[in-house]
Amino acid sequence: MSETNRQVRLAQRPVGEPDPEVFEVADAPVPEPGDGEMLVKVLYISVDPAMRGWMNEGRSYIQPVQLGDVMRAGAVGRVVRSNNEHFAAGDYVTGMFGVQHYAVSDGKGVTRVDPSIAPLERYLGVLGMPGMTAYFGLLEVGRPQEGDVVLVSGAAGAVGATVGQIAKIRGCTAVGIAGGRAKCDLAREMGFDDVIDYKAESIHDGVKRACPKGVDVFFDNVGGEALEAALARLRLNARVVLCGAISQYNNTDSLSGPRNYMSLLVNRARMEGFVVFDYASRYGEAAREMAQWIGEGRLHAREHVVDGIEDFHGHLMMLFRGENFGKLVIRAQDE
Amino acid sequence: MSETNRQVRLAQRPVGEPDPEVFEVADAPVPEPGDGEMLVKVLYISVDPAMRGWMNEGRSYIQPVQLGDVMRAGAVGRVVRSNNEHFAAGDYVTGMFGVQHYAVSDGKGVTRVDPSIAPLERYLGVLGMPGMTAYFGLLEVGRPQEGDVVLVSGAAGAVGATVGQIAKIRGCTAVGIAGGRAKCDLAREMGFDDVIDYKAESIHDGVKRACPKGVDVFFDNVGGEALEAALARLRLNARVVLCGAISQYNNTDSLSGPRNYMSLLVNRARMEGFVVFDYASRYGEAAREMAQWIGEGRLHAREHVVDGIEDFHGHLMMLFRGENFGKLVIRAQDE
Repeated sequence: MSETNRQVRLAQRPVGEPDPEVFEVADAPVPEPGDGEMLVKVLYISVDPAMRGWMNEGRSYIQPVQLGDVMRAGAVGRVVRSNNEHFAAGDYVTGMFGVQHYAVSDGKGVTRVDPSIAPLERYLGVLGMPGMTAYFGLLEVGRPQEGDVVLVSGAAGAVGATVGQIAKIRGCTAVGIAGGRAKCDLAREMGFDDVIDYKAESIHDGVKRACPKGVDVFFDNVGGEALEAALARLRLNARVVLCGAISQYNNTDSLSGPRNYMSLLVNRARMEGFVVFDYASRYGEAAREMAQWIGEGRLHAREHVVDGIEDFHGHLMMLFRGENFGKLVIRAQDE
Repeated sequence: MSETNRQVRLAQRPVGEPDPEVFEVADAPVPEPGDGEMLVKVLYISVDPAMRGWMNEGRSYIQPVQLGDVMRAGAVGRVVRSNNEHFAAGDYVTGMFGVQHYAVSDGKGVTRVDPSIAPLERYLGVLGMPGMTAYFGLLEVGRPQEGDVVLVSGAAGAVGATVGQIAKIRGCTAVGIAGGRAKCDLAREMGFDDVIDYKAESIHDGVKRACPKGVDVFFDNVGGEALEAALARLRLNARVVLCGAISQYNNTDSLSGPRNYMSLLVNRARMEGFVVFDYASRYGEAAREMAQWIGEGRLHAREHVVDGIEDFHGHLMMLFRGENFGKLVIRAQDE
């Protein structure tokens, strides 16, 4: 192959908000797959809040990306050549292929996807990690009961919008928190009963207004003020699902914990974290149920597609600035 | 009856640390029990961290004490006269009799106690609310498994010391946090495997040293730095039991939440509050099991008895200053 493999590598560890210099765009030869391996042409790349954590040194739920390595990312691609008995050239697949044009994979953690069922980018959204995160986080950790009030921060995001829709499917009232009118409109279109615009009213006032009976399940993607506002309005035996804290990821000095965490005591409530990878053995079950909901028109998806990996830094910053509408996906190259 | 009923009433709502003026000592006539009621001579009164919360206005798990009312308190006394079919003069009983010499009760929430099994003050400690709190908080919320590392703040206190001992009985490693050498010695005597003296070393260093494998269950009576230190060392699927936050109760401006609460996510851990009253229907079961452990010499108790209700403020401040060794109890009057 004469083509080169364009890659985005981690050049520096960011302090606070990542500068453009944190990433380096470089060309390498297209790698050759060895025994049992396959070469994947990367078509769509997922941009996720969790990426910020992967760039930090130190203990977390997953190894940090090493300096000089290709930035870790979930992606969808097409198998170009295969020495792996489970995959053939022409297969469409999803896996952790990284921010680059070509990846070699041994097939571990790789799943075949079907472009006739849904567009490829959707396998990075509602049919991918964000969908799995919403599904298992809400149903296994939040455990909503029919009639519960489910509050969701980051309601216009890939995870949040799916959480709200699953809550509705399960007979709950779904209230979202999002920033700005356009995002609130998007969340309402997705099915939320009410949405709090934190750019137009204080989240505390909004939660009081939109959840007059209080909150049974709070699904938190954001942290900070949203978490405190939800804790202040918990109902008895409420569940707080810790999925993320995007408001805090770039903080360097003034990290803040929820000052009213003792509301958990007063309300006999629990706050619980989870990592979606722990449910990997059940992804199939979740995907089948969600595909059925999509087929029935009960679960909607929206992706925000941007072009090219060269400005990966800019794409990532869109996410932290809240400029994306729906799941943010990079179209890496033409097929 | 010609005797007067000495009472401690809530005169003002405290802001921050209570001043002496918050309480008023006054004499009232000894009340007459009506139909179905009984008169109880109050002998021992429990002094508890939770009292600070009861003095605040506003929503909590229990109604606040109203201004001018007798300060709420658990107590042990002797029935002097009874129009209640379930209790007779001479019975020893425990209930929420308040900080006063005589109480009228309709018998609700009142339990008979047996002074031949244990001294009366013990029914306010390991055989009373602190014991129930330790038992249900650890076993039902913390759910320790054999071999787990159980970390306990306030380890020399009435609840903490009992938690440590029950953890040992269940085959766990018990590590305590307490302030000062004398309290740490007391906690060790009570059976803790190791104790961190937060006056001699940083709690973070102490937890690292004493729990090298990390923490499976953290039973928190204190909040603040202890909670952050424990969160920083959680093991996978750890449980944080929120029982109290005595370090925070008198705070007025700088309430602090755990800045590293996202450790719950990374470690798939949960933090959960509980209120012991929810387990009232099972107190009997717990008391039987704990009485058996006491009989077998496996569960030890210690009370710190002070005299007279007149300086109730001073006794309460002992608690917040950490000057008590074991369960703090007031001997209200001679029998």
